[in-house]
Amino acid sequence: MSNQIRLDVNAMMAEYVGPKGIARAELDAMIPELKKAHAAVEAGRGVDMQGWMDLPYNQQEILARIEAAAARIRKEFDAFVVLGIGGSALGPAAVQQALNHLHYNELPAEKRGGPRLYIEDNIDPERMAALMDVIDLKTTCFNVITKSGGTAETMSQYLIVTDALKAALGDEWKKHILITTSEKKGFLIKIAQREGFETFYIPDGVGGRFSELCPVGLIAAAVTGIDIRAMVAGAKEMDQRCKTDDAFANPALLDAGLMFLAMKKGANMSVMMPYADSLKLMADWYAQLWAESLGKNVTLDGKPCNAGQTPIKTLGVTDQHSQLQLYTEGPYDKVITFLKVEKFRATTPIPHGCDDIPTIAFLGGKSHNQLIEAERQGTEYALFKAQRMCQTITLPEVNAGTIGQLLYFFELVTAYTGALLNINTFNQPGVEESKIAAYAVMGYDSEVHTAKREEMKNRPAPKAEYIL
Amino acid sequence: MSNQIRLDVNAMMAEYVGPKGIARAELDAMIPELKKAHAAVEAGRGVDMQGWMDLPYNQQEILARIEAAAARIRKEFDAFVVLGIGGSALGPAAVQQALNHLHYNELPAEKRGGPRLYIEDNIDPERMAALMDVIDLKTTCFNVITKSGGTAETMSQYLIVTDALKAALGDEWKKHILITTSEKKGFLIKIAQREGFETFYIPDGVGGRFSELCPVGLIAAAVTGIDIRAMVAGAKEMDQRCKTDDAFANPALLDAGLMFLAMKKGANMSVMMPYADSLKLMADWYAQLWAESLGKNVTLDGKPCNAGQTPIKTLGVTDQHSQLQLYTEGPYDKVITFLKVEKFRATTPIPHGCDDIPTIAFLGGKSHNQLIEAERQGTEYALFKAQRMCQTITLPEVNAGTIGQLLYFFELVTAYTGALLNINTFNQPGVEESKIAAYAVMGYDSEVHTAKREEMKNRPAPKAEYIL
Repeated sequence: MSNQIRLDVNAMMAEYVGPKGIARAELDAMIPELKKAHAAVEAGRGVDMQGWMDLPYNQQEILARIEAAAARIRKEFDAFVVLGIGGSALGPAAVQQALNHLHYNELPAEKRGGPRLYIEDNIDPERMAALMDVIDLKTTCFNVITKSGGTAETMSQYLIVTDALKAALGDEWKKHILITTSEKKGFLIKIAQREGFETFYIPDGVGGRFSELCPVGLIAAAVTGIDIRAMVAGAKEMDQRCKTDDAFANPALLDAGLMFLAMKKGANMSVMMPYADSLKLMADWYAQLWAESLGKNVTLDGKPCNAGQTPIKTLGVTDQHSQLQLYTEGPYDKVITFLKVEKFRATTPIPHGCDDIPTIAFLGGKSHNQLIEAERQGTEYALFKAQRMCQTITLPEVNAGTIGQLLYFFELVTAYTGALLNINTFNQPGVEESKIAAYAVMGYDSEVHTAKREEMKNRPAPKAEYIL
Repeated sequence: MSNQIRLDVNAMMAEYVGPKGIARAELDAMIPELKKAHAAVEAGRGVDMQGWMDLPYNQQEILARIEAAAARIRKEFDAFVVLGIGGSALGPAAVQQALNHLHYNELPAEKRGGPRLYIEDNIDPERMAALMDVIDLKTTCFNVITKSGGTAETMSQYLIVTDALKAALGDEWKKHILITTSEKKGFLIKIAQREGFETFYIPDGVGGRFSELCPVGLIAAAVTGIDIRAMVAGAKEMDQRCKTDDAFANPALLDAGLMFLAMKKGANMSVMMPYADSLKLMADWYAQLWAESLGKNVTLDGKPCNAGQTPIKTLGVTDQHSQLQLYTEGPYDKVITFLKVEKFRATTPIPHGCDDIPTIAFLGGKSHNQLIEAERQGTEYALFKAQRMCQTITLPEVNAGTIGQLLYFFELVTAYTGALLNINTFNQPGVEESKIAAYAVMGYDSEVHTAKREEMKNRPAPKAEYIL
């Protein structure tokens, strides 16, 4: 059986789903633009912030180094903690959920592939305290991930953790830190060199949300026993499939064109609906990629705009009992992407019983494997009847190869769609304002922050009648 | 310090946030409609599907019974598994996340308040297998929750679990099942009576998404040591605050009016953004309540519509690094609701260090408690500058009382908003189509399902060129 993932966009098209779908003529009219978008993305391959397009090809040496480090960590430690936020956390979490046991951390050591994995992507004070309750510093390795070293959340965690390690371990503490950062830029690399921490590099041209297939994501994956070479090979396979600018042979390009047309028709939301618990956090990873890449207020020509489509994370069948009512009867404002798994890694037969409930007794002798796919098809049909645009991505199985394909597929769809929207897909200027304002609130003294504090005073006074 | 939660809607208003906000005149013009909506909801109190409005008042006896059962379960079992989906799962999960340790299941027994808690709300075959790997049937109690007994997902789990229990335990197996279902209707009550399972009842007028404050949610909460009386008292406190039809004294009514006006202005999304890991799953619970209640295609007068606003689950500060770029620069299509915690239950000081990174060294001597709130304020300010509608709900602390208030607050906002939209807030007809189609796919033989199978054949044939 082929391990290749497949995209089915029939239910995006008016021919299939009716007038609320995309007319074939609309798609045909897009073809020249799609070729242009493909050319633009290819022209940028490996340049500036498109270093992620080189990752399927240029990591032979680094993969071996990661595997060696992972082998040592697996031997020496019982817990591996990622300190990172955004792209430094979402990719590792998604891959862990996809490829390891669903209760991985609760398994006894001999049944796990490696140390327990914790991904600490928030600064909730209760959370750091809770983490300390379940790890033993003596057997814990911390992977500090920040490209610039300037990420306040991650570096404050670094301060907390190094302080605790020193207190618990004395001189040995440095062996419990692994750094993933920029080789040349930023502060963390200087600290790493001074302290002698083992360090892996984030390539210059790889931004946070495009970093899962570089050491940012691959280290945690390797530590927990995932085949990172198969992941990278999967990405390469998808890259090869997408070398053509023929939208009817390049799945990412076809998808970008359809998503772009769907946005024009008023679909300001993209719902990611995996029918597999293992793919649940893939929707979280996608949510950052899609939102931060396409949510922009200026075009490449400098014209104001308010581009972007809001990603929605859901889970099938669970959210049939939560969101489906809205999706079938609410506004025509979304595209729904099913992630379908052809072959699950376990079979759960349903025994006979409940003879006085015919609809339940009927399930006896069947399996959860059949039921989950039947429910997916039932939902697909309900959305078809309600004339909603849907598409399905099928994974023959959830494995390192298909996950690599899927990650890279979405990265390409995002890059092409950004080109179609004529925006800068790879920056995130809108995040700065909140960072500066937060530091102004904290009382940081710099010209910029002092000015910001003054500026913030100019807000209208809140009115008491609006506080209840 | 008061334990009362507060709503601040200043940043919803044009007076504060500028022309993209809601004009005071628009709100004033709504006042008669708000009084009407309040009267409609009050008129329905306790009637038909508004039994949830009685829950703060009519559960004295049942609370005592739940506490007694919970005390026994805590003594006898090491794991407590909820088999339920939708409202039967989302409420219990949200309350567990809010009020128990963030790594509750990983704590040793003596540090937990009760048995480990698993909430099984999907039929992924890998998930049931994974669960069996981490529980011991001999010390596990299963709480089967379905009002009708006809929920295929839950009842198939029931078949699997009872079969496994019988094999592992022989005659003793029945003591490991606890049923939560309708007292009078449906099949599960008959099975429960026949088998002699301990059973709790879901009142007739309490639908899934309004059921957290009845035995559906309270049993799991009590089993893990949560003060369910304080939760219910919190709901009562909120209900009392909302007895008035003066929108400037009734926070749920004011909020409903503003959300309704925001929808009219094109905000087809409601973003729930808690700044606390403990409140993360409250956004999931809210997502069902809001989506399934308001997503309707027909008004109470029988006129076609496509009502509804899509709920978006996020987490601060984490999603500043994922969604904020889109929220500040993308389309003006959302309202953002911050959940702010005034006093966390732990303090995490940030030690000094990183002297060569001034912005990080600056954090030394401060705390994560300060940083998370400063970042929340920074985000609030960035959204203000981008003229986005926001509101803030402040919890003095996350405790059983504030959680009870919050749950009931959102239930009332939903009920009032449904009344404003002139739709049936309490049904979910759109879910049926997918259930019937799924059973048709499975080959179920009934007139309805056979007809559905025929109907499904009438879909246009998928075209091969759309599958890549």
